[in-house]
Amino acid sequence: MSADEWAVAAAEEILDRCDQLAELTCMENGIERDYLSPQMAQAYELTARWLEEGGLATHIDQAGNLVGRLEGREPGLPALVLGSHLDSVPDAGKYDGILGVVTAVSVATHLARTGKNKELPFAIEVLGFGDEEGARFGATLLGSYAFGGGWNDEWLERTDSKGVSMRQAFRDFGLDPDRVNEAARKREHYIGYLEFHIEQGPILEQRDRALSSVTSIAAASRYMVTIEGMSCHIATPYDLRHDALTAAAELISAIDAISQQAGTRANVGEISAQPGGVNVIAGKTTFSLDVRAGNDRLRDDVFDRIWARADEISTSRKVKISHTMIHTANSVQCDPFLRSCIEKGIERAENKEAFGLVSYPGHDGMAIAKLLPIAMLYVRCKGGVSHSPYESVTAADVAYGTQAFEQAVLNVAAHNLAYEKTSDDAREA
Amino acid sequence: MSADEWAVAAAEEILDRCDQLAELTCMENGIERDYLSPQMAQAYELTARWLEEGGLATHIDQAGNLVGRLEGREPGLPALVLGSHLDSVPDAGKYDGILGVVTAVSVATHLARTGKNKELPFAIEVLGFGDEEGARFGATLLGSYAFGGGWNDEWLERTDSKGVSMRQAFRDFGLDPDRVNEAARKREHYIGYLEFHIEQGPILEQRDRALSSVTSIAAASRYMVTIEGMSCHIATPYDLRHDALTAAAELISAIDAISQQAGTRANVGEISAQPGGVNVIAGKTTFSLDVRAGNDRLRDDVFDRIWARADEISTSRKVKISHTMIHTANSVQCDPFLRSCIEKGIERAENKEAFGLVSYPGHDGMAIAKLLPIAMLYVRCKGGVSHSPYESVTAADVAYGTQAFEQAVLNVAAHNLAYEKTSDDAREA
Repeated sequence: MSADEWAVAAAEEILDRCDQLAELTCMENGIERDYLSPQMAQAYELTARWLEEGGLATHIDQAGNLVGRLEGREPGLPALVLGSHLDSVPDAGKYDGILGVVTAVSVATHLARTGKNKELPFAIEVLGFGDEEGARFGATLLGSYAFGGGWNDEWLERTDSKGVSMRQAFRDFGLDPDRVNEAARKREHYIGYLEFHIEQGPILEQRDRALSSVTSIAAASRYMVTIEGMSCHIATPYDLRHDALTAAAELISAIDAISQQAGTRANVGEISAQPGGVNVIAGKTTFSLDVRAGNDRLRDDVFDRIWARADEISTSRKVKISHTMIHTANSVQCDPFLRSCIEKGIERAENKEAFGLVSYPGHDGMAIAKLLPIAMLYVRCKGGVSHSPYESVTAADVAYGTQAFEQAVLNVAAHNLAYEKTSDDAREA
Repeated sequence: MSADEWAVAAAEEILDRCDQLAELTCMENGIERDYLSPQMAQAYELTARWLEEGGLATHIDQAGNLVGRLEGREPGLPALVLGSHLDSVPDAGKYDGILGVVTAVSVATHLARTGKNKELPFAIEVLGFGDEEGARFGATLLGSYAFGGGWNDEWLERTDSKGVSMRQAFRDFGLDPDRVNEAARKREHYIGYLEFHIEQGPILEQRDRALSSVTSIAAASRYMVTIEGMSCHIATPYDLRHDALTAAAELISAIDAISQQAGTRANVGEISAQPGGVNVIAGKTTFSLDVRAGNDRLRDDVFDRIWARADEISTSRKVKISHTMIHTANSVQCDPFLRSCIEKGIERAENKEAFGLVSYPGHDGMAIAKLLPIAMLYVRCKGGVSHSPYESVTAADVAYGTQAFEQAVLNVAAHNLAYEKTSDDAREA
C-alpha cells in the first residue's frame, strides 16, 4: 500500500522544496543557513511565497520567525501551530527542521485547497523558526524561545564569528532588537504545537517503520569533566603515578556501562590530554560528557551514579576529578492528547499500530512547552544520520508522514468539536 | 657520613658549572641547547677550558662531539670513555646529560691532579655528545651513534624548524658533513663506556638512596593506535553504536592493567577523538602508545597481550583497531663487569649495599653498546622530575656520585691490572 494520492504528490513537492531551500546557503560546497542571515531572508521569501500560494497570510515576527496563518471556520480563532526550524548546522543535510516546515506548508495548503480548514474549530499557524541549532550565536532555540516567552535579552550582546552582535544582526535583518519580546505569544491565542521531524536516530529503520510519535524530548545535561593528576616520565612506577588519562579511560568505560544499564544515552565525544607527550604521563585530561534520559529523575540518577564512580576512581588513581555543567535542559513530556492524535494519524496512514519513541535530540518543542502542549511526529531517516550532508528520507515515508500529520490536525479538531458538542449538550440539559 | 672531601668540593664546582652551561641557551626564559648550534659551540669552548685546566687534551670530532683525553700509564692506550650529552630538550633542566659530562670532567681532573692516571692501564676519554635528545632534527642519539658507528647519512638531509639542513648545520659549525663517518671509533681503541646520569625517575628518592647502577636500558616501542568506528548522534542506541572513544577507553585501561601486571612501563600520553562534538559519538580515535621493558622479549610479550585485547575490543565494540610503529629500540644490557665496578664504587661511597635499576629512559649508551660494553651510574633527582626546569639534584648526592664514579674507574683499572697479572703469571708459568 502507499499513502493517499494527494500526500504522495505532496511528498514529491516537499522534497523538491527541500532541495530548493538547500541552495540558500552561506557556506561553499555545503549547506549552512544561519539565524538573521541574508540566506535566511531568502529562505523566508521563498517559503512565504509557497505559504501564500497555499492561501496563508504571512509575516515575520519580531524575533525573526516566519509565520503563515490559515483561518479556521471563523477568523481570529486560537491557532494550532505546525512548526519547525529553517536554520541549520554547518555542513548540514537538507531535512533537519526544514522538512517539518515544508511539510507543514503542504498540510496547511491541502487543508485550504480542500476547504477542510473551514470546518476547523481553530486556526492553523505554520511556524518557521529562525534559530534552533544555534550555529551563529552559540545559544540555541532562539526563535522558539522568543515564541514561547523564554527569550533572554542578554543573548542580544552575543557576537558571531565575524564579531557581529546579535543586536546588529536584528537591525541588518530589518528588525528592532528592542522589540524581540513582542514575539512572545499569549496562551489564549493557541491550542497547541505539533512538529514533524526526521528521527535523527536509527530505530524506525531498525523496526522497518516509516513513522512514530514522540513520547518525550529527553532531559539533557552537558558537562566538561577535568581530571588533574601529575605529568611525569614513563619511567615512573605505577604506584607513584597520578595518570589523568588512564583515570579518564576508566571513567569513560564506567559512563558507558552505567548509561547502557539504565537505558539512557550518554556520550563522551571530545577529549584532550596534557601535556600530550608520547613518553609523558598525562597530568591533565579534559572530556565532554552529555547525558540524556526520557525523564529528569533518570538523567540525574545516572549522573549521580557516574559521579559516585568518579569519586572512587579519584581515590584509587590519586587524581582530582571535577566537572562544570555547561548546559542543562529538563525533559519535556509530549501532551498525551496531542500524541494520541498523532498516533491515530500514523495508524490511519500506515495501517499499523503506532508507537512512541523518546527523542534524544533537542527540538523547538522544548522552548514551546512552557506555553503550549506539544507533540511530535517522527519520520524515518536513512541510517539515523543527521547533521550531515548524508541526511536522507524517502518520498514514500514523507508521503505517509504528510498524510498522518494532516490526519493529526483533523483528529485534534474532531476532539475539539466533540468537546464543544458535550458542552452544548450540557448547556441544553 | 658524607663523601670524601675532594668529592664534596668537586660537587660544588660541578653544580656551579651546570649553572654556567645553563646560561648558554637558544631559547628565551628557559634552557635549550641544540646540536651544532652557536650555543653548543660556546658550551664546548667552556667545557674544553675546564678539561684543559684539568690536564686533558681536547678536540671536537667529525660528528661534532667534544672529546677530552687523559693518557694512562703510557700514551696511546685504549680508553675508558666517561660520557654523556651536552644538548637538551626545549625548556630543559640543568642536569639531564650535562651533569654526566661535567662530573666526568671533574673525575678526570681529580685522577690527573692526584697522579692516579699514571697508574691506569688505559686512557680516559671524556665525551660530551652533541646530540642525544634530538630536539633540533628529530632523530635522536646523533652524537653517540656517530661515535658507535651507527651513523646514517640520510640524517644529513633532515632540516630543523627554520629549514636549515643538518648538512648546512655541519658546515656552519665548522665541520665537513662528508667526513662525519670518521667519527666512528674502532673497537680496539676502547675499553668500555661509563655514564653518570640523573635517574629521571623517583625510585631512588622512594628508597632514600643517592645512587644506583643501571641493569639495562629498557626496550622501547612506540605506536600510534587508530580506532575507526562511525560517528553518529548521541540518540543512537548502544547496540547500533561503533564508538571509537569508548573502545579506546577500554583499551587504555587494558594497557594499564597488562603493563602493571607484567612489571613493565607503558603510557598513553596523547589522544584525540574526531569529529569531537559533545553530542556526537566519536567516529575515530587516535592515541600514542609507548611500551618499555627491561628486555626485548618482555616488551614484545606485553605488546602481544595488548594487541590480543585490542582484537577482542575490536569485535565487541564493532570498531577497527590498527597501529603503526613509530619507533623501536631493543634493550641494552649493561656489562656485568662494568656494572660491578660501579656498584662497588657506590658501596664504597655510600657505605650501603648497591642495587641496580632498569633505565626506562633512553641514553647515549644505547648507541654505544654495539661498539663497547657499557654501564651507568644513576644519581637521585628530586621527585624523579626531568625534561623540566624543575630538575634538581643535591650537592651531597652529586658528591657521593662523583666519588663512586671515580672509584668505578679505579675498579675497572684494578681488574685490568689483575687480568694482566694473571696473564703475566700464566706467561711465567
